[in-house]
Amino acid sequence: MPDAAAPASPSARTRVNRYRWLAHYDRQTIYAILDAMPVAHVGYVHDGNPIVTPTLQWREGDRVYWHGAAHGRMMKATHDAEVCLTVSILDGLVLARAAYNFNINHRSVMVFGRPEAVTDPAEKTRLLKRFVDGYVPGQWERLRPVTDQEIKATAILSLPLTEASAKLRAGPPEDGDEDYAFPVWAGVLPIRLAVGAPEPDPRNLPDVEMPASLTAFSIG
Amino acid sequence: MPDAAAPASPSARTRVNRYRWLAHYDRQTIYAILDAMPVAHVGYVHDGNPIVTPTLQWREGDRVYWHGAAHGRMMKATHDAEVCLTVSILDGLVLARAAYNFNINHRSVMVFGRPEAVTDPAEKTRLLKRFVDGYVPGQWERLRPVTDQEIKATAILSLPLTEASAKLRAGPPEDGDEDYAFPVWAGVLPIRLAVGAPEPDPRNLPDVEMPASLTAFSIG
Ligand SMILES: Cc1cc2nc3c(=O)[nH]c(=O)nc-3n(C[C@H](O)[C@H](O)[C@H](O)COP(=O)(O)OP(=O)(O)OC[C@H]3O[C@@H](n4cnc5c(N)ncnc54)[C@H](O)[C@@H]3O)c2cc1C
Ligand SMILES: Cc1cc2nc3c(=O)[nH]c(=O)nc-3n(C[C@H](O)[C@H](O)[C@H](O)COP(=O)(O)OP(=O)(O)OC[C@H]3O[C@@H](n4cnc5c(N)ncnc54)[C@H](O)[C@@H]3O)c2cc1C
Ligand code: HEM
Ligand code: HEM
Repeated sequence: MPDAAAPASPSARTRVNRYRWLAHYDRQTIYAILDAMPVAHVGYVHDGNPIVTPTLQWREGDRVYWHGAAHGRMMKATHDAEVCLTVSILDGLVLARAAYNFNINHRSVMVFGRPEAVTDPAEKTRLLKRFVDGYVPGQWERLRPVTDQEIKATAILSLPLTEASAKLRAGPPEDGDEDYAFPVWAGVLPIRLAVGAPEPDPRNLPDVEMPASLTAFSIG
Repeated sequence: MPDAAAPASPSARTRVNRYRWLAHYDRQTIYAILDAMPVAHVGYVHDGNPIVTPTLQWREGDRVYWHGAAHGRMMKATHDAEVCLTVSILDGLVLARAAYNFNINHRSVMVFGRPEAVTDPAEKTRLLKRFVDGYVPGQWERLRPVTDQEIKATAILSLPLTEASAKLRAGPPEDGDEDYAFPVWAGVLPIRLAVGAPEPDPRNLPDVEMPASLTAFSIG
């Protein structure tokens, strides 16, 4: 695993052209965005056409992982084919003085590469435990134990983070110098993901206890 | 424009296979998801490889629109080439009794097709006004007026909603019958987008007034 603090440089594919001053290529920035937002959009080519599938990702070291049906289209089509996995976090609507300068505060990552399948059942089980415990620490051991058949039905793919870029925008609008004299309100409307109170399943047994860590859950 | 209430049937490409009981193909369901969530992920093929770009979409009638740099890669590469535009909304983490039955409450849409460019400057201006006013009603007229050069630098693409599918999950976990006797807490952790208090630009003129509708802004 590379030094997470080391600045990285872009490949031809990951060099940001538009608003390039928002670009970051270092592992620390990329890791932080992936860790904050499990929802990814995985793009792949199927019969010559692009498909974008929303999927949950999780990171371990310098790789990103996702899971799905072993016999599903997404998992079969993305195995050993080029993919682009994109994670984006919406942080706010930026209202400028000119419509042209409206913007979005955001953090986003694109990862390119050819996914590899995890095939060893013990390693698959370890990774799925990590996936579940990443949401609710310690939950895996409390659950009805996983079966061999369930592990078999589950495919796990992973990508190294060797070809990845991040883009981040924060702060107030940026208008042209002459437009700051224009008499219109400008500013930012902050947006974030909020977690509500846990809703117990009506079919819960009377004496089960809610995992305490659920109330600490945060996302984004 | 087709009757929004009419049930639609899937094409070969949009027929949902996995968890197919979550599928919807009617316009009303698809419109509601697109209208709730402007963030889309557009997938396209560039030099044979997939790219997924986060972009804002807006809907008018039976089409979805997005904008960007006239000379940018995304806008050039998606013009008259196959794309998949995906919108997804995260509604909750579903904690089941078995790890295998963990799930995500969500609403999502995939749209397939070949985008068309809007080229007429008057129509582009009308659509950009609709885009801005969709966030803050009436704001376009308050802003520093748009210039011809700005309209020229802006590309707008659109896709018809003729080949689209939606997938929705809501409600408590679904475990196997025998697992309801397993003594572990199950339930849903609801997640939603929250809008914070508007943050005025420190460079605002002293007497500008915040648009009243900003406090009514909601998303997701
Ligand atoms: C929530 C959100 C909404 C957005 N809305 C819009 C919109 O409405 N219109 C618009 O034009 N753009 C929007 N963007 C920015 C958009 O994602 C692209 O960055 C931009 O369109 C330029 O695309 P391009 O392919 O022309 O970029 P290029 O700069 O040519 O892309 C080259 C490389 O830069 C990297 N890169 C580009 N974009 C990103 C990114 N977002 N995150 C990480 N790496 C990246 C990739 O490695 C890519 O291969 C939005 C971004 C976010 C996160
Ligand atoms: C926030 C979120 C997180 C998710 N996390 C995961 C995950 O971690 N693992 C996982 O396997 N799946 C996940 N899904 C579901 C995922 O998006 C796919 O539906 C699923 O993986 C099946 O993909 P497939 O290509 O095999 O489906 P198929 O059913 O074979 O796809 C056929 C057609 O169905 C339609 N379709 C499929 N999925 C969707 C969708 N989500 N929205 C609208 N139309 C759709 C499309 O038209 C597609 O062309 C998640 C969905 C959301 C919204
Ligand atoms: C945090 C934990 C987990 C979450 C949030 C989660 C979420 C999801 C989601 C959203 C889907 C897609 C359902 C759909 O197509 O609509 C899915 C599919 C699937 N998950 Fe998970 N999952 C989790 C853990 C697991 C574990 C531990 C296993 C295996 C033991 C597993 C096995 C599967 C399989 C096999 C599918 C494909 C089902 C099918 O298409 O038939 N999941 N999961
Ligand atoms: C609600 C209003 C709007 C929002 C939220 C918005 C948001 C965005 C975002 C997020 C980007 C990408 C910036 C980046 O690459 O990091 C962008 C690019 C762009 N927008 Fe907008 N926009 C809005 C309205 C407009 C309008 C009205 C115009 C034209 C008059 C416009 C013209 C452009 C152009 C030309 C680009 C490409 C800039 C470049 O890459 O050089 N936008 N917009």
